[in-house]
Parts: sequence; structure tokens; C-alpha cells
Amino acid sequence: MGDIKIIGNIVEKIPWEEKKGGKYGSPVWRYSNNPIIGRNPVKGVARIFNSAVIPYGGEFIGVFRGEQTNGIPYIYLGRSEDGITWNFDENRIPFEDEEGNPFMPLYAYDPRLVKVEDIYYIIWCQDFYGAAIGMAKTKDFKKFIRIENPFLPFNRNAVLFPRKINGNFLMLSRPSDSGHTPFGDIFVSESKDMVYWGKHRHVMGKSSNWWESLKIGGGAAPIETTEGWLLLYHGVSSTCNGYVYSIGGAILDMDNPSIIKYRCENFLLTPEEWYEERGFVPNVTFPCATIHDAATGRIAIYYGAADSYVGLAFSKVDELVGYIKDNSKVSESDTEIGKR
Amino acid sequence: MGDIKIIGNIVEKIPWEEKKGGKYGSPVWRYSNNPIIGRNPVKGVARIFNSAVIPYGGEFIGVFRGEQTNGIPYIYLGRSEDGITWNFDENRIPFEDEEGNPFMPLYAYDPRLVKVEDIYYIIWCQDFYGAAIGMAKTKDFKKFIRIENPFLPFNRNAVLFPRKINGNFLMLSRPSDSGHTPFGDIFVSESKDMVYWGKHRHVMGKSSNWWESLKIGGGAAPIETTEGWLLLYHGVSSTCNGYVYSIGGAILDMDNPSIIKYRCENFLLTPEEWYEERGFVPNVTFPCATIHDAATGRIAIYYGAADSYVGLAFSKVDELVGYIKDNSKVSESDTEIGKR
Repeated sequence: MGDIKIIGNIVEKIPWEEKKGGKYGSPVWRYSNNPIIGRNPVKGVARIFNSAVIPYGGEFIGVFRGEQTNGIPYIYLGRSEDGITWNFDENRIPFEDEEGNPFMPLYAYDPRLVKVEDIYYIIWCQDFYGAAIGMAKTKDFKKFIRIENPFLPFNRNAVLFPRKINGNFLMLSRPSDSGHTPFGDIFVSESKDMVYWGKHRHVMGKSSNWWESLKIGGGAAPIETTEGWLLLYHGVSSTCNGYVYSIGGAILDMDNPSIIKYRCENFLLTPEEWYEERGFVPNVTFPCATIHDAATGRIAIYYGAADSYVGLAFSKVDELVGYIKDNSKVSESDTEIGKR
Repeated sequence: MGDIKIIGNIVEKIPWEEKKGGKYGSPVWRYSNNPIIGRNPVKGVARIFNSAVIPYGGEFIGVFRGEQTNGIPYIYLGRSEDGITWNFDENRIPFEDEEGNPFMPLYAYDPRLVKVEDIYYIIWCQDFYGAAIGMAKTKDFKKFIRIENPFLPFNRNAVLFPRKINGNFLMLSRPSDSGHTPFGDIFVSESKDMVYWGKHRHVMGKSSNWWESLKIGGGAAPIETTEGWLLLYHGVSSTCNGYVYSIGGAILDMDNPSIIKYRCENFLLTPEEWYEERGFVPNVTFPCATIHDAATGRIAIYYGAADSYVGLAFSKVDELVGYIKDNSKVSESDTEIGKR
């Protein structure tokens, strides 16, 4: 491991496979047995994709976007010993309100899972008279209590930072419209209590690089490194035959994450394997989580593929951050504080 | 005056003209000398419309959307002795940040002006990397201090309630996209400090009545009455030749204003005079403020006309609320608390 380090926990059992060959110096490589989750993964669910995982109790746990056979997405719990083979609950996660009454969203998709202090937060997209962000908290993955929707519609791709910054919770999100949004920048918002949110700042927008020239959106929870917050996000290109979703990378300032220090002008991964190019929504690679190990600098990236599968890819923090720095191109709206 | 009363201040000098004739029982009638503000009202400004006024120091003061001759909208201050004839400052309102440095939005339009306790708040639409809500406060209409943008983009038509409810500031807004938004419902949000906002609730959406079948948006600050909050809002119909903006009315629950008690299925006023049908944007009547007198129940409605003029219309609280109640049709999404 080089000079650039992950600041965080040791995860000895992190899924891992060494790089084999690799072309053109790409710092991210795919797991050789991808996809790790195939079609019809559990009764009543046609496809699992765009899902988030986290170390828990010496093993791994995750929240998974399951497309039910009625076509409506919901969130399912899954467990794994190795982070690669997953077992899913047949029942949807039973959300309740703060009084203990069932409080299920009409639909729920693209969950993220982030631990802040001793609480696990699930953040997803749901109906709130339009597409918006829903949230719940759990300590034990048995009781899931919904908390206030943080933002007005329309919004998607909200991702919490894994620790408070300057005493406040911080969350990335991507304001949108209610359809297949043809625009979108990443903002960051602050809260003292996870109920009231404010001090919204613009973080970064689409760029002149064609792979992210339509819109972008937060992906995995930011990884704390000695260079700043490493953000893996998705960038979208619009073609005559639809959108193409690639994975990009940026480094955010540690104390003021609305400021981008480095932003890689090249995608880190783009659809080219059969499970990324073929499926319910062809040509999608959509990162939602990483598992990362501070001892070795290893990063395992979990990404949805073609809205049909879960793929796994790997990188090492020094190689990945080094590549982002070496290929960095930032714009004025990236480096400013983002207040207007 | 009947049984239904305005809860609020006495405004002896409220502009007023008695109803003359009137067809089909409409409870709102136009001022006979409309428009009260014509073209080229002040140097460098082509048109003033969509503007808000308030009693101040025994006279009246207002914040006006002035379309500069470069085509960019900004907010101008105006003063009036009678609420009908207005004198405008030639300079744009000089907003500053909390440290006293100039902090001007790139553009600013459709301002509202609401007094809560001893502070006057200006709320408008501006660029925040997309259309969003900007806010400032003043005590003396000399020093205008901007406060945090309350919401992420994209949003328009934010209107503050004129007093705290259950100890909190409440604000209506209309989440949107960044263009000529073809959808839109009214939400309400809560804040303890005007910095952090949350507990967002859906108030009301478009309806099956064609005059408001595309979208709706908050208009004048809600008027407190013995029946609840009287909200004058705009409703939009989409035609083959563009949008048509009419004025609608609803009564919101006093303590839980996300609940609609009554909602008038008929428009209260719709474009039919030359200054409403002809102009930069034909067929727009867009309410932004009222002056209302608790002693007489009189209500003077200020509305933008065709994005070119300011019109004035009148009503009386008992007649107006009575008409809304007599013609009320509420949907399930109107009467529910609006939490999902």
C-alpha cells in the first residue's frame, strides 16, 4: 500500500480478487465470477440490482432493491458470510413509524446503507407524491423505524456521509424531476437531528465529458481517505437509443465536501460485459456501496448491472485515488463552495 | 360583515371599490382602473408584474418583479400612499449576506413579502444551479439580509405563513423542474430557525377541474380567518397554444394546514380583460399578495397580469369564504395529512 490510506475500520473478510492483466491502466477491475446475484434470486422477486451492503457482526448484511414479479420495486434484507454469496429474506423489510405502526412506502428502490455512530441508516427513493427520498434507521436489522423524509420531491440518489462533519450529519442528493430525469447535479445538505435539513450546497454537476454529460448522481457512501472523501458516483450519457450509466470518481474536501479537489475526467468502469449491456435496462453500471479495508486499502465496489444483476469490482485506494488525481479536471462549479 | 371574519390587523386605508353588478355570483371583482401598474414603470424596467405588497408605517410598501430591459428579472422596492399608485426605486434591492457583503442572486422573480412577528421576509425564485427559492429578511426596508435558501432545487412559489403555527415557521412551496414545469403540487414545510427545514407534507395537487388540471402553486400569503387559512393560489390549464393561469381558493386547517377543509372547484378569476389576455405571456392572472382588513373583512388582491402588468381585485371575506364552501370539492389527497 502506498501513501494514500483509507481512514476507517479493518475488514479482514473483505471480498477480494487480485487484478489479472487489465488494459489501459484502469484502476478498477471486475470480479471474475460476475454477476454475483442472478435472475429470480428469491421467491416473488424477478431481479435484484442497485443494492447496498455493509460489514455486520463479523459477516455482511445488505439492503437490496428487489423487483417484485408485479413490477414494483421494494427493499429486501440479505446476509452473506463472504460478501459474494447472498441469502435473502422472502419478506420485504417491515418498516414502521416512530409509534411502532406499520409504515410501508408505496414502492422503494436504489437503497443505500450507511452506519453513522452506532445506528444504521437506510436511504432510498420512494413515492412522496412524486419521486423523493425515504429514510429509516435500525440498530439490529430487526426493527426498522422510518424517520422524516429529508427533502421535498423530486429527488433521488441520496447518500449519507459515514460520520458527522463539524458536528452535523451530511447527505448528498440529486434533485430531479418525476420521470427519466434528463438533468441532475449533486448537492450536499446538513442536519443536526435528521429531521430538519438545510445549508444546501452545490457539489458538482454534469461535465463536458460525454460519459457524464447528461446528469450525475451520488453512488456509494463516501470513503474517508488521507486525500479527502473518495466519492464513487454514476455519470450518464444520452444516446439515440437511451441512457448509458458509467461509474466515475472524485475526491471531496474533508471539511467542506461541497468543494471538489479532484475529479476524474475518465470513467472508472462503463458497461461492456454481457450482464451490464443486456437486461431490463441495458447499459447500466450503477454503484451503490463499497466494502473497504483500512488495513490493506482494498475496496470492493457493489454495483447494479442493467437493472438486472449485482456486479462486484475491486480497486485499491492508492491506485484509485492516484488515477483520479492523475486524470483530474475540475470546473469552477466543482471547486466553489456552491452557495448562490 | 357576516359571521366569517378575518383574524388580523385593521388596515383603514385598504384600497377599495364596491362591487358593481357582477355576473354569475363571482365573489371577486376587478378594480375599474386596472391595470394599476403599466409598461415601462421605472427607468431600465420594461414590465412589472407578479409582485407583493404589505401595509407599512401607515402606508404601503412592496417588492416588485421588474423585468429589466436586458430581459433578466430582479426585485425592486416600491412605495404607495393608497396602495394603487406606486413609486419605484430605480435600483434593485441591495441584498447582502449575514456579514454585510453584497450577495445578489443572478436573477430573482415572483417575490412574496410576509411579516412574521417583527420581521419582514422576502421570498422569491432564483438560480441555485437551477430554479430554487431565495429568501431575505428586513426590519426597515433599508438593510436586506439574505438567509439560507430553504430548499434544494427545483422549486418555485414559496409562501410563508404570517405567524408561527405550533411554535414553528411554516412555508408553502411548489417543487418543480427547471423549465416550464408541466406538473406541480403544493407542499408545506416546517422550521424552527429559518435555516433547517423538514417535516414536509403534501397539501394539495392539481385537480380534475380543467382550469387547474396541469399544476397549481401558492399565491398570496394565507389569510387567517375564523374558518381556517384562506389560500389564494394559481391553477394552470394547458392548451394547444400555451398555459392559462387562473386564481383559485381553498381553506386550510388552522393547526394542520396540510389538510384542506374546502377547495373551490371553480376559478375565482380567470384571464378575460385585455391586460390579462395580452402581454409578454398571454393569459396569466397570478396572485402574489393581499391587503386585508380585519375590521371590514375587505380583501384587496394583487395579481400579475400577462407577465406585463399588475392588476387589483377585491372581495369580502364572508362572500369569498362562503363561495369557496358552497362550491367545495375536495379529494383524498387534499384532506389527508400528506405524509408518505
